[in-house]
Amino acid sequence: MEDIEIDEVATPELDDPVLIEGLPGVGHVGKLAAEHLLEEFDSELVRRVYATEFPPQVSVDGEDGVASLTCAEFHTVEIDEGPDLLVLTGDHQAGSNEGHYRLTSTFLDIADSFGAERAFALGGVPTGELVEEYTVLGAVSAAELADDLREAGVEFRPDEPAGGIVGVSGLILGLGGRRGFESACLMGETSGYLVDPKSAQAVLEVLEARLGFEIDYASLEDRAEEMEEVVGKIQEMQEGPALPDDDLRYIG
Amino acid sequence: MEDIEIDEVATPELDDPVLIEGLPGVGHVGKLAAEHLLEEFDSELVRRVYATEFPPQVSVDGEDGVASLTCAEFHTVEIDEGPDLLVLTGDHQAGSNEGHYRLTSTFLDIADSFGAERAFALGGVPTGELVEEYTVLGAVSAAELADDLREAGVEFRPDEPAGGIVGVSGLILGLGGRRGFESACLMGETSGYLVDPKSAQAVLEVLEARLGFEIDYASLEDRAEEMEEVVGKIQEMQEGPALPDDDLRYIG
Amino acid sequence: MEDIEIDEVATPELDDPVLIEGLPGVGHVGKLAAEHLLEEFDSELVRRVYATEFPPQVSVDGEDGVASLTCAEFHTVEIDEGPDLLVLTGDHQAGSNEGHYRLTSTFLDIADSFGAERAFALGGVPTGELVEEYTVLGAVSAAELADDLREAGVEFRPDEPAGGIVGVSGLILGLGGRRGFESACLMGETSGYLVDPKSAQAVLEVLEARLGFEIDYASLEDRAEEMEEVVGKIQEMQEGPALPDDDLRYIG
Amino acid sequence: MEDIEIDEVATPELDDPVLIEGLPGVGHVGKLAAEHLLEEFDSELVRRVYATEFPPQVSVDGEDGVASLTCAEFHTVEIDEGPDLLVLTGDHQAGSNEGHYRLTSTFLDIADSFGAERAFALGGVPTGELVEEYTVLGAVSAAELADDLREAGVEFRPDEPAGGIVGVSGLILGLGGRRGFESACLMGETSGYLVDPKSAQAVLEVLEARLGFEIDYASLEDRAEEMEEVVGKIQEMQEGPALPDDDLRYIG
Repeated sequence: MEDIEIDEVATPELDDPVLIEGLPGVGHVGKLAAEHLLEEFDSELVRRVYATEFPPQVSVDGEDGVASLTCAEFHTVEIDEGPDLLVLTGDHQAGSNEGHYRLTSTFLDIADSFGAERAFALGGVPTGELVEEYTVLGAVSAAELADDLREAGVEFRPDEPAGGIVGVSGLILGLGGRRGFESACLMGETSGYLVDPKSAQAVLEVLEARLGFEIDYASLEDRAEEMEEVVGKIQEMQEGPALPDDDLRYIG
Repeated sequence: MEDIEIDEVATPELDDPVLIEGLPGVGHVGKLAAEHLLEEFDSELVRRVYATEFPPQVSVDGEDGVASLTCAEFHTVEIDEGPDLLVLTGDHQAGSNEGHYRLTSTFLDIADSFGAERAFALGGVPTGELVEEYTVLGAVSAAELADDLREAGVEFRPDEPAGGIVGVSGLILGLGGRRGFESACLMGETSGYLVDPKSAQAVLEVLEARLGFEIDYASLEDRAEEMEEVVGKIQEMQEGPALPDDDLRYIG
Repeated sequence: MEDIEIDEVATPELDDPVLIEGLPGVGHVGKLAAEHLLEEFDSELVRRVYATEFPPQVSVDGEDGVASLTCAEFHTVEIDEGPDLLVLTGDHQAGSNEGHYRLTSTFLDIADSFGAERAFALGGVPTGELVEEYTVLGAVSAAELADDLREAGVEFRPDEPAGGIVGVSGLILGLGGRRGFESACLMGETSGYLVDPKSAQAVLEVLEARLGFEIDYASLEDRAEEMEEVVGKIQEMQEGPALPDDDLRYIG
Repeated sequence: MEDIEIDEVATPELDDPVLIEGLPGVGHVGKLAAEHLLEEFDSELVRRVYATEFPPQVSVDGEDGVASLTCAEFHTVEIDEGPDLLVLTGDHQAGSNEGHYRLTSTFLDIADSFGAERAFALGGVPTGELVEEYTVLGAVSAAELADDLREAGVEFRPDEPAGGIVGVSGLILGLGGRRGFESACLMGETSGYLVDPKSAQAVLEVLEARLGFEIDYASLEDRAEEMEEVVGKIQEMQEGPALPDDDLRYIG
C-alpha cells in the first residue's frame, strides 16, 4: 500500500466549489456541522482517501457486519441558492506531525482538482465552561477575508485562540494560504467536555449567511436536546441527595 | 536490513488455500486458535517475515539458549476433509500505524502468492466481564459472506464491536477486501482480562463448521482448566476471610 | 509539501556574519535573548523555514485573525560596531530525534549560504533553585574558542551541564563543529521553572563583550520586574497566613 | 546529514577479530565491561558512528567545555594472548524499533569490514533482588556455540530470559546469526536497580576464559566498593532510627 491512496469514485463538474472541512476535533463541532450538511442536502461521494497515517482500523456497519477501512471522504453538494460544496469528513486525524502535513496537502490537491479556490475549516474552540451564547470565532489566511465574515456574525479576537489552531483545520489555513486558497477557520465556542450540536449549528449559521444557502436544523436541535438531558442527569448525579458528604461530620 | 525481509522456507503447491491469521490480541484468542491448528494438524513452515517494525528482540529457546529473531510465520496445513490452510502466527503486532499497513500488505501478498482468495482473521472481543457463553461475533469484507457464517453459529450485531476492529485483523478485512480477498473476522467474546482458551475453542468451532474439518480440543480444554484454577485462586484471595470490609462499619 | 521548505524572502550581502540561535528551551532564555536583538536593532526577515517536523499548527495574529503557519525565521541584523548577525528564532523545536538533526542541518546550510563561519547557540541551564547571580556557562566546538569567551565572563565547568546539551543548540555545536563552524553555546543559569529575562540579559551581555556591540536592556528589565511580581505573588500565596500547617499539630 | 554517518578514523589490519558490544542497558553491565577492556588494554579508536536515531545531543568534556556529538565508537584492542578485539561502546541505544535494526546492521557491517566473524554482546539480566552470586546467563545464535561457553562458566536456562533479549544485544544475536556471525550474548545477573560493576566483572571473567586473555579488576572492584557504600547509606536512610514505623501503633 502507498502512504496515501485515493479512490476516485466520481468526478462531477463543479462550479467554483467551496471546500468545507469537518474532521473530528474539540466538541466534534466541525464533524457534526459537515455531516449535517450531507444529511440535509443531496450529496454524492466523490473521493475516498486512505492513508497509512490513519489508525489501522475498520469500522463495522449494518446487519451483516460489513467492514470499511478507515478513510476520509469527499462529498459534493450542489445547492440551488449557493455555490457548490466539496465536503471533507472522516473519523480520524493523522497520527503524527508529518502525517498532518501530508494529508492536508493531499486534501488541498483534491480540492484543487475540483477547481476549489476557497476553503472553510470548521471546528470548535474550548472555553472550559458551559456555553450560554454560541459565539463563532474566526481566523483567516489573509486579512481581506475578515470583513465578510464579521458581517456574517464571526468574532475576531486578537491572538485568540491563544494556542493557535492545530490539526487539519490549522493547516487548511496555513498550507492552504501558502498555496493561494482563500481559507477561513470558523470555530464555535464549546465547553470542550461534550459533543456539542448547538455549537455546530452556530457555525453552520455563519456558513448560511456567508454562502447564501438555507438549511433545516431540526435534527441538530434534537441531538442538542438529547445532550442536554445527558448533562442534566450528570448534574443530578453529582449534586446527589439533600445532605452533602461534608455535613456527615456534624451528624456522625 | 530492508524494512521487511521474507525467508522463503518452502513453497508447496496448495489447492485453493484459506489464510488463517492468529496474531496476538485481546485474550490471545486468535493466537491460541491458530497455534492449536498447528499443534493438532501436520503443518509445514513456509515463510518467515522479519520487519524493522517489530520490536528489536530475540526469543531464547531450548537447552542451549538459541536465539530467534522476532518474526511472523506462515505454516501450511493440508487437511483431508477441508481446504488447505495457510496459517499466520507470531509474537508481535507492528509498532506504528504505518507498520500495520505495510505488514498486512506483505501478509496479503504472501497469501496471494500461494493462491489464497479467502481469509479468516481470528481474534477476541472484550466484554469486560467473565464470559459464560462463548458467542463468536463476525465481520466481513462483503455482505454476501455473512449468511454462511451465520449458519456456522456466528452472530452479527449492528455496529459491533463499537470501536471497530484494529490491528492486522482489521486490516485483513479492510485492505484484504479492497484487494478482492473474501475476508471475515471471527471474534470470540472474552473478558479481556485473561488468556482465554475457551474463547479460542469457540472460534475454532466456527472454522470447523465453515471449512469442514474436525479437530480435537483436549489440549485447549486442559489449558482452560488451568486458567479456571488461576481465576479461582484470584477470587479466593480477593474475597478473603468471612467478614467483608464493608461490614466492619457495623461492628467497629 | 516537502519535509522542509525554505522561503527565500531576501538575500542581502552580509559581511562575515555570525549565526545567533534562540529557539525555545529552558527558561526561554535563548528565545528571549534572540528576540531582544531583533527588537533593539533594525532587522530584516530573510528566510522562513517550514517543516513537517514542526507541529501542524498556525498562530493567529492581529485584529483580523490572520493565521501564520509554524516556521523558524532568519533575520539579519546589521550593526555598526560589530559583525553582521543572522538571528534564528521560532516557536518550536522539532518533534523527533531525526527531525532535530534534519532541521539543524538545514539551519546550518542557510547560515553557510550567507557566509557565516561562526555560530552562537543561546539557551538556559536549569539550576533547580532561584538564581541570585546570573552566571553564563559555556561549551564550544573546539578548545581554542574557550579563552575569548572566558574573557567575556563565561564560565567553563568540567562536565557541565551534566546531561549534555540537547536540541538544536546542542546540534549547532555537534553538527556545526563537524562541518567547520566555530560554534559556542552560551547557557544562562536559570531556575528552570520560569521564563527568565534576567538570564537572557546575562547571555546578551556576553555576546556584547564578545562581538563588540552595545544594546539597551530597558525592555528586558521591565519584563524581569513583571516576572518578579508574579514570583512574589506566588510566594505570598504559598506562605499564606501566619501559622504554617506544621504548627497545627501543636495547637490542635 | 545522512541517517547514519561513519567516520573512518583508522583501519588497522586485524587478525580474526572478535566484536565485543557494550552499549547501555540493564545495570550498565555491558557498558562497564566494554569500557573496562578499553581502560585496561591499549586501544585505538577506529570508527565513530553518528545517527539521526540517537538523541540530538552533545556531551561536554574537559576544562574548555568541548562538545562531542553523540555517537557510538569502535576501538580495536590487540592482546598478545588472545584474538584481536573490536570493542563497540557508546552512550545511547536507538530511539525506535527501526533505528535499532538499522544501527545494528551498520555495526555488523563495520565488524564485517574488519574481518570479524564472531561477536559477543555483553549485558545484564535483571533479577529484581540484590545479587549474592554473580551468575552469567548465555544465549547463542547457534546451538553448537553453547558448550564452549558452558565450560567458561556460563549458564543456559531453558526459556530465560523470559522476555527475550531486546536492543542491540538482541539483534547482534538475531541479525548477526542470520548473516553468519557466531554470536553469543553474555548476561550478568544484576538487581536491575543499580549500576553493577561486580556483574560486569563476572561477564568479563567469562570472556577471559573463553578468549584466553587476562585482565586486572582493581578499578572495577573500587567502583563496586563505592556502589556498596551507596547501597549501605540508602539502606540506613530507609531503616531510619531504632523504632520502625509499624511499631508506633503499639506505643501510640
